[in-house]
Amino acid sequence: MTVGTPAGMRELNQRAVLERLRDSGPATRPQIAADTGLSKPTVGQALLDLEQHGLVRTAGRTISGPGRSAVVYEVNPAAGHVLGIDIGRGLIRVAVADLSGTVVARLDAPNRARSAGALLQSVRATAEDAVARAGLRMADVVSKVVSTPGVPDPREGTVRRAPNLPGWERKGLLNELSSALGPDVVVENDANLTAVGEYEAGAARGVDVFVCVTVGTGIGMGIVVDGALFRGAHGAAGEVGYLPYGWPPPDSPPREGMLESSAAGHSVVEMAASRGLDVETAKDVFRLAREGDRRALAAVDEEATRLAFMVASVAAVIDPALVVLGGGIGKNTDLLAEPLTRALTHATPLRPVIVPGELGEEAALTGAIATALRTARDVVFARRGTG
Amino acid sequence: MTVGTPAGMRELNQRAVLERLRDSGPATRPQIAADTGLSKPTVGQALLDLEQHGLVRTAGRTISGPGRSAVVYEVNPAAGHVLGIDIGRGLIRVAVADLSGTVVARLDAPNRARSAGALLQSVRATAEDAVARAGLRMADVVSKVVSTPGVPDPREGTVRRAPNLPGWERKGLLNELSSALGPDVVVENDANLTAVGEYEAGAARGVDVFVCVTVGTGIGMGIVVDGALFRGAHGAAGEVGYLPYGWPPPDSPPREGMLESSAAGHSVVEMAASRGLDVETAKDVFRLAREGDRRALAAVDEEATRLAFMVASVAAVIDPALVVLGGGIGKNTDLLAEPLTRALTHATPLRPVIVPGELGEEAALTGAIATALRTARDVVFARRGTG
Repeated sequence: MTVGTPAGMRELNQRAVLERLRDSGPATRPQIAADTGLSKPTVGQALLDLEQHGLVRTAGRTISGPGRSAVVYEVNPAAGHVLGIDIGRGLIRVAVADLSGTVVARLDAPNRARSAGALLQSVRATAEDAVARAGLRMADVVSKVVSTPGVPDPREGTVRRAPNLPGWERKGLLNELSSALGPDVVVENDANLTAVGEYEAGAARGVDVFVCVTVGTGIGMGIVVDGALFRGAHGAAGEVGYLPYGWPPPDSPPREGMLESSAAGHSVVEMAASRGLDVETAKDVFRLAREGDRRALAAVDEEATRLAFMVASVAAVIDPALVVLGGGIGKNTDLLAEPLTRALTHATPLRPVIVPGELGEEAALTGAIATALRTARDVVFARRGTG
Repeated sequence: MTVGTPAGMRELNQRAVLERLRDSGPATRPQIAADTGLSKPTVGQALLDLEQHGLVRTAGRTISGPGRSAVVYEVNPAAGHVLGIDIGRGLIRVAVADLSGTVVARLDAPNRARSAGALLQSVRATAEDAVARAGLRMADVVSKVVSTPGVPDPREGTVRRAPNLPGWERKGLLNELSSALGPDVVVENDANLTAVGEYEAGAARGVDVFVCVTVGTGIGMGIVVDGALFRGAHGAAGEVGYLPYGWPPPDSPPREGMLESSAAGHSVVEMAASRGLDVETAKDVFRLAREGDRRALAAVDEEATRLAFMVASVAAVIDPALVVLGGGIGKNTDLLAEPLTRALTHATPLRPVIVPGELGEEAALTGAIATALRTARDVVFARRGTG
């Protein structure tokens, strides 16, 4: 857009009208004029332009109130569709949503892939299936966001630090994903998208500065500031598995990071085993703790103290208002919160509020759809021409 | 500003012309038109408006090149002045600068105050003296920024965690500073302004995501993202003195934070003393290390390892491209960098570049002036009326 030209003005006005309808719902021309500060004729022209390009549609007429009835306008949700994909170690989750964010198709497929090639094929088939169920073709999808473990590196075209997906760190993987899914694919770290999901529709709605920590087989964290992801200089912000727990460091660092090697899922099992409990999974430890088993409770306590180290570190660096806890371990906030808060009290005056995530395993997919929508709205608006 | 109105367009155009002159230096009307994409008549009208309000002035005519000579325009640096004040434990530093950032008066005064009241009086007298030396009255100053240890809390009107300035944490202190210096005073943490200074004119010029760590009698850190300070939810971002060094925590946390109690100035002296060195200050330890004293070198090594804990923590949370080290301890980067980097290598694959600060003890004052200038430019532009 060029500022200060008639075409630029017309675009600004259309955008203002569209945002008004998107943010506050259906409205009449006089209501939009009052809310945006634009004149009624200007609003009328903008609505005409937007309707002509399929971005706005009429939604009936007002039926009560003084004066003549007036046409009510609303955003046309069918002006575009988006695709969200969450690639997890056990499951591939796919959703298709319209521009209003309403999910019009939702599909899960087990991830049994033992190679990157097989996983790519599985992702592509599931995505195409979901899009077809929505009555669309892949070409109709305006924006696609893929959630993956690890750190996508667009410069190198790879995903770094995703050891749990076989072959996933191989060269050219991001290109292969684009080939499989078509153009306009954005690949994002799963912890980041989980944070976006909790911001859009979960435990962190409206919170300016917060983090979302996923503790499961690994440890990840997404940071959201004023509604936008904070990625750091190389996309590694929130890689808290590398926090220096157990300082000074050993001669060679554990591949998965000092904190991750001490506080992720397998550690909970080890802490329980060292107390004489015969358990296979962290889930068992939390179940036994809930039943009142003292050894399980002690293991949970120790895990909470290790997680408190992470919360204290994050608080001292970025001072979040809120820490959202999720993942297979983190979701046990009922058991973890009390000992975690106790350890924090002994460590620091900087103590953010700690809450469980609200979206569970749907969080990353919700974040993928929300991220795709932001892009799609711009793309659809830009496609309309300049009026 | 209202978008999409003639007055709004005129303001946008004036702003575009002013920013062009500010960012890329003096230029003729055709040059500005080419750079901004505006028409030559539009640029001419904007220059007329800006010149009339004293924001732009002529700077001669072009003397070479084809065609007629043309008038050269530049930003008028005298359109406003700003005041920067750095309140340190030993010294009060004051600078007055014009809108181009040129310092027109610079004054230091020793800080001998033993109460908040005495310090306020000293700050006020030094500021008024500096403004007078610049040939101005306090009322001529458009924007004032004060650097202080501790965390200013505008909601409570206090400065928290500033134990080194007697009485400085008292209620209503921010109001008292406003009373002493007049309206439009902004108070900011010194580590934050040090980071802004290094970004504007020092070691971090043009770096998107970096931190600036000050290690001296205390430990502070400023975080800059895309040129703006990142403050966190309650202004405590970068309070890395509270990083959980020496986990698990003791029963009652040290007032100055777990890392600060282990890695600030006095710790260096203690680490040297525990090795049999008879020293009074950290400065002595670094001097002896530079002379090759083995015990001093060992103490410096240990300090570097503790600082590596901090760098590893910060890297795992926000992934900065650069860590700028400063302060009485931190400035000894020549001695600290090698053992620090060695410890990091053993801890984490996330290893930001570490460099010494370039501005030394002038950094916070430089940051204060830079921050004041950003506000002043907006204020002066807004004051001009709508053209």
